Amino acid sequence: MFQFTATYTDLYQLSMAQVYFNKNQNQQAVFDYFFRKLPFNGGYAIFAGLEEIISIIEELRFSERDIAYLKEHDFEPEFLAYLKDFRFRGTINAMQEGEIVFPTAPVLQVEANLIEAQIIETILLNTLNFQTLIATKANRIRNVAGDKTLLDFGLRRAQGPGGYYASRAAMIGGFDGSSNVITGRDYGFPISGTMAHAFVQSYDDELTAFRDFAEHRPKNCVLLVDTYDTLKSGMPNAITVAKEMEARGQKLLAIRLDSGDLAYLAKRCRIMLDQAGLDYVKIAASNQLDEYVIQSLQNQNAPIDVYGVGTNLVIGKPNGALDGVYKLSFANGKPRIKISESISKVTLPHKKQVYRILTEDNVLIGADAIALSKEAHISVMHHPVEPFKNLNIDDLKQQAMLQPVMQQGKRVYPEKSVQEVAAFSKKQLAALPEEFKRFDNPHIYKVGISNQLKEERDRLIAEHKN
Amino acid sequence: MFQFTATYTDLYQLSMAQVYFNKNQNQQAVFDYFFRKLPFNGGYAIFAGLEEIISIIEELRFSERDIAYLKEHDFEPEFLAYLKDFRFRGTINAMQEGEIVFPTAPVLQVEANLIEAQIIETILLNTLNFQTLIATKANRIRNVAGDKTLLDFGLRRAQGPGGYYASRAAMIGGFDGSSNVITGRDYGFPISGTMAHAFVQSYDDELTAFRDFAEHRPKNCVLLVDTYDTLKSGMPNAITVAKEMEARGQKLLAIRLDSGDLAYLAKRCRIMLDQAGLDYVKIAASNQLDEYVIQSLQNQNAPIDVYGVGTNLVIGKPNGALDGVYKLSFANGKPRIKISESISKVTLPHKKQVYRILTEDNVLIGADAIALSKEAHISVMHHPVEPFKNLNIDDLKQQAMLQPVMQQGKRVYPEKSVQEVAAFSKKQLAALPEEFKRFDNPHIYKVGISNQLKEERDRLIAEHKN
Repeated sequence: MFQFTATYTDLYQLSMAQVYFNKNQNQQAVFDYFFRKLPFNGGYAIFAGLEEIISIIEELRFSERDIAYLKEHDFEPEFLAYLKDFRFRGTINAMQEGEIVFPTAPVLQVEANLIEAQIIETILLNTLNFQTLIATKANRIRNVAGDKTLLDFGLRRAQGPGGYYASRAAMIGGFDGSSNVITGRDYGFPISGTMAHAFVQSYDDELTAFRDFAEHRPKNCVLLVDTYDTLKSGMPNAITVAKEMEARGQKLLAIRLDSGDLAYLAKRCRIMLDQAGLDYVKIAASNQLDEYVIQSLQNQNAPIDVYGVGTNLVIGKPNGALDGVYKLSFANGKPRIKISESISKVTLPHKKQVYRILTEDNVLIGADAIALSKEAHISVMHHPVEPFKNLNIDDLKQQAMLQPVMQQGKRVYPEKSVQEVAAFSKKQLAALPEEFKRFDNPHIYKVGISNQLKEERDRLIAEHKN
Repeated sequence: MFQFTATYTDLYQLSMAQVYFNKNQNQQAVFDYFFRKLPFNGGYAIFAGLEEIISIIEELRFSERDIAYLKEHDFEPEFLAYLKDFRFRGTINAMQEGEIVFPTAPVLQVEANLIEAQIIETILLNTLNFQTLIATKANRIRNVAGDKTLLDFGLRRAQGPGGYYASRAAMIGGFDGSSNVITGRDYGFPISGTMAHAFVQSYDDELTAFRDFAEHRPKNCVLLVDTYDTLKSGMPNAITVAKEMEARGQKLLAIRLDSGDLAYLAKRCRIMLDQAGLDYVKIAASNQLDEYVIQSLQNQNAPIDVYGVGTNLVIGKPNGALDGVYKLSFANGKPRIKISESISKVTLPHKKQVYRILTEDNVLIGADAIALSKEAHISVMHHPVEPFKNLNIDDLKQQAMLQPVMQQGKRVYPEKSVQEVAAFSKKQLAALPEEFKRFDNPHIYKVGISNQLKEERDRLIAEHKN
């Protein structure tokens, strides 16, 4: 929906680009997108945002306005002329959107000249970090909610227009629908929403408010029962209206609780509805929900059929950001490395491939191996940091995870609907052993590096230390 | 920059609107925007986002595409025809953007018919909640950083396009510049940025990388010294290049540290620079900074001149969201209230005004009083919840804070630049006594309600309890 231009970037990308341009240093390079730490203390993340970033990159240009603005910032005319014709002409290899992904292993890889690769860095990180965070959060909520209906209600508390993409990512993570109309319009997922407290308040009495609503919105009628007093006013009025609807051959879909003790109230409301012969009327609940509150409600057998989740979902609380980075691994014909005080932050050189390891009968063993892209088969994978930790994978299936999604600046895979991505994600998760999906202290998925990659990394470290 | 259409809303706004439309219930109403809890355990918040929300609301329309989409969602043709001509024609009264604001007191007030007021709710909350959060976070960082230069580096870790507005809000909170080019383009604040590790890595040696950069970016040259080894490689190379620049009559602006112990390294680097006669070369630092880390660096007298702050600023960590709400207080000729189990969540009825209380010589006493809009003068303000707590303000100056910003759907105040808003905010903060600005456990600013408002609220509670 949004029009991004190529100035949706950090200034340093353009400062560096000016130098590459002047020095004829604009050679082919490889950058890896990966993250270092799983969010939410979880056992996996769900890769999301690929579809948008590919669409954005395909169309990314500097506008007239961008060029005029940059003219005031110490860029040279020849370089500005270059930017005027800028478009991304490189190759992108990536895991599939919706894939389950793990730290350290590149999730996406950009091969392009240095200028093009740098100019897209910021928007790529901005898009993938956020959607991956939210899809992962949504999936944690899905995991505790079982087959209950999950709705995203977060737009009002989202971080500005970040909310537009949060709703999409929530669907990938397993949500059923959203209150967000514009994102629903653009991605075609179910939208949902009935009444706020203001609706009830605007009437002199709650019963008339419910009656009017039921009369004009009979198809998906959900009555919000906590404006004045849930059990003494909201529920009796909702039951009256539900019975009036029955008499007209209609059915009240649900009542919604938005305050108070949701477990207690849901149980009381369920009894009241059942006693009135309204066992088909569902109970929806909202109010500062997250995976912990929902888990607790589920453990208490609260008879809630629909959870509406807002703030905590769309801002990915408590993390708020995925620490995804974009690191140079090859340029000007040579492997490249960044040294750090901490070995875990030393980057992995060379163009690489990531292999997911499976048994002969396609069972995930819980390991990904990172190797040089030219390696055909990996015998042993090493812990990237800790010495003496390694795993023999010689006899196991090794599935190459990074596949072309863009070549010469053009998408080379069929566009996928958000439902297709969500279905793929669900399938991948179903194949992941339970211990990695455990809510607390999940088993750690192993990500290792091949012999050759380890040797190359260690050789480059030694080279730079001298 | 972004094109928002009126479907940037929650579906329930439109469901309610359909009923108001059918029932001729689309009467005049008043909604209050306020928040309940200060973020970051701070003593105040900074109101931001007003300029955008007024611009957005002025232009908010349903597009052809919106109408076509809604047609599939059970809305009636007459109502869709109404939406086609929708525009906001109401009045908005608000505090000034950049104002220091406190919980409970309305920061902004919408007077419009119910449909118009509801349709703008979601985007209004989305915009004001986020920018107020980030301006407040930025100001906390400014408070500990003294007169050091503060730069926003957060776009890559921002929540998608939320980052576009985060940079603007950071300026309002007291930042000096940003790496974010597109927002700088649109709001005219200083942008900043030089080189990433990838620049150094792309060369065979660091010295040549620095030389090339200094040759082509001499005006704002900042060299990143930690790609391989800060003290053994980065600094000696930077000093060599700084001396070469001197010989050409140029000056190296700064070196930047992005890893390691920043206090230790900054001190070592300062000594190395000074010993080389480069006392004019500044030291910039980045890497997971927030107000706590900066306070610690300041306490250690780390000789850092420029702080680059990313993730923690632009996602407003740890809160991530301001809990701003939009509550109906008047409709269809009557004051309106929402009852809650908790008295602190009962809403305040009637159209109201907020008064800031000052002494005769214009010193803030640290109190805001909420009153009915028709009250001329408030003698006593009551704690909104706790009985027996009140404050006599009869002899004090009472400054009305909510002023018209939009009438009949048109802006009625002059557009302000982000610099003007930031300057206003700085002035307001200077007038706020230190105890409210304290980093830890700040003094609590009092927000009370007038006698008449209290009586009206209590009368309506009693009415609904019967």
